[in-house]
Amino acid sequence: MGLKIMEIINGLTLTSKSIYQLNVINLLKHAVRNFGRQEILSRRPDGTLFRYKYQDAYERVQRLANSLHSLGIQPGDRIGVLTWNTHENFEIYFGLPGIGAVMLLLNARLVPSELEYIIKHAEAKFLIVDDSLLSIAEEIIPSCKTIKGCVIITEKQLSSITTQIHPKFSYEELLYNANPSYDWPQIDENSIYSACYTTGTTGKPKGVYSSHREVYLQALMYAINARFSVNDCIFQIVPMYHVLGWGTPQAAVLVGAKIVLPGNYNLSNVSHLIDIVIREKVTVFNGATAFIMPMLEFIQQMDPKPDFSNVQFICGASEPPLELIKSYKELTGAEIIHTYGSTEAMAIVTINQPKPWLENELTEGEKWELKRKQGYVVVGLDVKIINPEGADLPNDGKSTGEILIRGPWVTSKYYNSPGTENQFTEDGYWKSGDVGYLDSEGYLKITDRLKDIIKSGGEWISTINLENTISSLPNVLEAAVVGIPHPKWQERPLALVVPRNNQVTKKQILESLKTKFAKWQLPDKILFVHEIPKTSVGKIDKKNIRKAYRNVYKENYPNN
Amino acid sequence: MGLKIMEIINGLTLTSKSIYQLNVINLLKHAVRNFGRQEILSRRPDGTLFRYKYQDAYERVQRLANSLHSLGIQPGDRIGVLTWNTHENFEIYFGLPGIGAVMLLLNARLVPSELEYIIKHAEAKFLIVDDSLLSIAEEIIPSCKTIKGCVIITEKQLSSITTQIHPKFSYEELLYNANPSYDWPQIDENSIYSACYTTGTTGKPKGVYSSHREVYLQALMYAINARFSVNDCIFQIVPMYHVLGWGTPQAAVLVGAKIVLPGNYNLSNVSHLIDIVIREKVTVFNGATAFIMPMLEFIQQMDPKPDFSNVQFICGASEPPLELIKSYKELTGAEIIHTYGSTEAMAIVTINQPKPWLENELTEGEKWELKRKQGYVVVGLDVKIINPEGADLPNDGKSTGEILIRGPWVTSKYYNSPGTENQFTEDGYWKSGDVGYLDSEGYLKITDRLKDIIKSGGEWISTINLENTISSLPNVLEAAVVGIPHPKWQERPLALVVPRNNQVTKKQILESLKTKFAKWQLPDKILFVHEIPKTSVGKIDKKNIRKAYRNVYKENYPNN
Repeated sequence: MGLKIMEIINGLTLTSKSIYQLNVINLLKHAVRNFGRQEILSRRPDGTLFRYKYQDAYERVQRLANSLHSLGIQPGDRIGVLTWNTHENFEIYFGLPGIGAVMLLLNARLVPSELEYIIKHAEAKFLIVDDSLLSIAEEIIPSCKTIKGCVIITEKQLSSITTQIHPKFSYEELLYNANPSYDWPQIDENSIYSACYTTGTTGKPKGVYSSHREVYLQALMYAINARFSVNDCIFQIVPMYHVLGWGTPQAAVLVGAKIVLPGNYNLSNVSHLIDIVIREKVTVFNGATAFIMPMLEFIQQMDPKPDFSNVQFICGASEPPLELIKSYKELTGAEIIHTYGSTEAMAIVTINQPKPWLENELTEGEKWELKRKQGYVVVGLDVKIINPEGADLPNDGKSTGEILIRGPWVTSKYYNSPGTENQFTEDGYWKSGDVGYLDSEGYLKITDRLKDIIKSGGEWISTINLENTISSLPNVLEAAVVGIPHPKWQERPLALVVPRNNQVTKKQILESLKTKFAKWQLPDKILFVHEIPKTSVGKIDKKNIRKAYRNVYKENYPNN
Repeated sequence: MGLKIMEIINGLTLTSKSIYQLNVINLLKHAVRNFGRQEILSRRPDGTLFRYKYQDAYERVQRLANSLHSLGIQPGDRIGVLTWNTHENFEIYFGLPGIGAVMLLLNARLVPSELEYIIKHAEAKFLIVDDSLLSIAEEIIPSCKTIKGCVIITEKQLSSITTQIHPKFSYEELLYNANPSYDWPQIDENSIYSACYTTGTTGKPKGVYSSHREVYLQALMYAINARFSVNDCIFQIVPMYHVLGWGTPQAAVLVGAKIVLPGNYNLSNVSHLIDIVIREKVTVFNGATAFIMPMLEFIQQMDPKPDFSNVQFICGASEPPLELIKSYKELTGAEIIHTYGSTEAMAIVTINQPKPWLENELTEGEKWELKRKQGYVVVGLDVKIINPEGADLPNDGKSTGEILIRGPWVTSKYYNSPGTENQFTEDGYWKSGDVGYLDSEGYLKITDRLKDIIKSGGEWISTINLENTISSLPNVLEAAVVGIPHPKWQERPLALVVPRNNQVTKKQILESLKTKFAKWQLPDKILFVHEIPKTSVGKIDKKNIRKAYRNVYKENYPNN
């Protein structure tokens, strides 16, 4: 079944008007004209910072466009990009789609078999790969017959790189030999700009193909909602292979903000990243809650504490615990801004910004609680909550159901993915699979994934609410709650808890839960573990936890 | 000759994707969902303030939509709107185009014959008119055969209004009787939202018909560039019949700002307007320089001075004198933000925002001078300067030529206006008729209108530069400079000056000009006058000045 196009009414239409197409490259051209001297920084593998200006980046973007032509790349071709948040990646973000090709974003944390599936599904023609990821590329390329060659991002001489990959090109050498000026074509705005594959915890990755129009509009909206300006310095921590780095690079460019790119980083670099925040006067830091959380552990050890009173930490992917929000504020002065988004909705759907009237009406405690919500819906998108029968639920702050999203930059189909049509409604909504509710002020609260929520004795139990309450205990590092099949109740909650220095007991956890939940909602079992299994994008891997503990409530399970 | 559509390249296009249309009503729907309790104020004729909330406004907008249907108004119909900046006008801004009809904005300061021309040209089907402007409507309607009826905005009973107009309807009674809920259709985004006619100083008014897409995109862009947020209180001083009030109402709505509408005002209300700025904590005041200027005269008399340190005065239509910018800052703390725009470019094209690096590099004096420039080009638009032969000029801060503008919300034709095609280029630019230059930082400086610039002995003399220098003298209220035919030099400058308390002499004026201009650029004559003739939109009426003084340099002119 195909998608039913929503009915469109014609008013007075001046058919002979030519329409200036929304092309993402125009955002960079604009930025270079007005903010050509603004800086872009990129952290090299050796920890030093590469610096250049928008105008220098633009020259290299033009050289890249000419280079891609010289490799025979045509409008519509899919080009895989497997690299970190570097200045070369920034150049690719504009130069590659600027010629009409499709930027296929490859998650460097996926296993090779998943990457291989994605490249084959997208029928990618070329691969651009960082030399630190070359071994992954070598593993994939032999079986990907559509790949015609590989461009390697490296500081080394191409000849010094030993690899089976053929033909291979050096990104730097291509740019060096290319013409520094390029006359950008006007591309139909509905042409695809990028392809991001969802790393679903169930089934095969699905391709979200976003057009120039969608990316352009999303960038305008994000800049408004996050209130970016030329005075900002934006630290692009979110990997640029995740939903276009949540759409931040384009939004940063359109206001002419200073941009800092961290290169390849992980929790072992935290001190370097914090140094950069301080030295470069970062004002916006975006990142998954799962990354901002352990950063706090590091900050707690710092003496004196860094002054982040001008820094917004825009976090997403999972809800920040109340303690996290408060600790950042109290220790560093930083504001945590909670957002919710998805690949299908091309990045952020809600953002938790304050409202002047609520500032006056709410108590201190209520204001902290509000900051944990996912925020209100950004301008342009429609979000509604439906019950299992498909009926709309009121925005009353309690009616809980599946979250549906539509709007000018929400995808309306997965690319070449028969059988997925039922994830979209006839009136243009995408069914997110997330469960939550909206309050009368428009703030969204996510309570679970539809597939994670625990169905116990005909009632729903939110795994996220239980997790957040357990995680908020001072001696708990992290917690995960899943529903496990149960002979009597269909499913019952199981909690996995990572204690801090073994300083928490199961009894303390249960006592704390009892103050907020009914008895039937409490986990039947609490297990202490060393770590919580995560997916490649840092989310709790509930599918695997359910599998590993699937027998825990069976009668013959040890300890039962 | 039709317009050549710019060539458009196709990349990868997923043809079965349905496109969610950019409809302006969605901005209001969004605002109501998230900012329903935000306030809208409207100044009544008796000076009191009407107050309601976004959610109340939206109910009335839905009643209006149903009312328009009940009058037989169809998608595509043009509906004339002749009123002030009131809450009813705000409702019309969303409800009327929301059903797919075209909002024909009628300038209440035009003479009836001009309005008649516009209504006939647009073939308007209905008129919505404020009761204070009923006499104008009565004069026009009899000869406008397309008009099927008139909706009167009035606090009175309809039966108590004596008028020849028939059929007549009361705006309030229509809304009172209408259904308070309306299911908005999705309108093709290229359908026309509004029609604004340029009040050119030459020729007949020309219709700029702007689509939903154009208005929606312009609103996003304006909110970003003017940095509006929900914390703002925006005083909509620019008449809403001028280029959609410069696009401010839509931009205000999309961020959920508080909106204050001044009703019918003029320079005699200044004290009331200033009271509102103070009492309602206005943060953004938009208005023509010609209005902000005499307001300063009033502020100078105030004791104590008002604290406007949180207020941005966004001004346009003409360049603010340096003294004005400085005085506002010194007396009240207010920031003057200079913008440049036009009906054809759907409001603002440039905005004078600071850049962090210039703050460090420029001297105090240079910063003040910079604030007089028109600002840098907003994201999304292309602006270039061409010489009389059509060649592009460099952005070097001096190469002066005609300003060309194109972009996603710049019109590409005048409505039903044969013979005007040459005001658009084949590559999509609109030829503004303004003369100026761009500097390397992208700041635009307007030096004249192409038709006003003085051609003297084969050289150009900027009338605006002369005017600004004369106006900056402390004992000058206002000045106008025009080129007058001259038997030897083709044209020579003439200056009209309004002195303050007769405290300035022609010699002083010439002395001051000599410090900045070459001798051949100085006006041959300076005449003291009581006032400068203005057009209906407050611009200096140079066409009429040239006509009135056309013989001043002829040999037989008295005093020569």
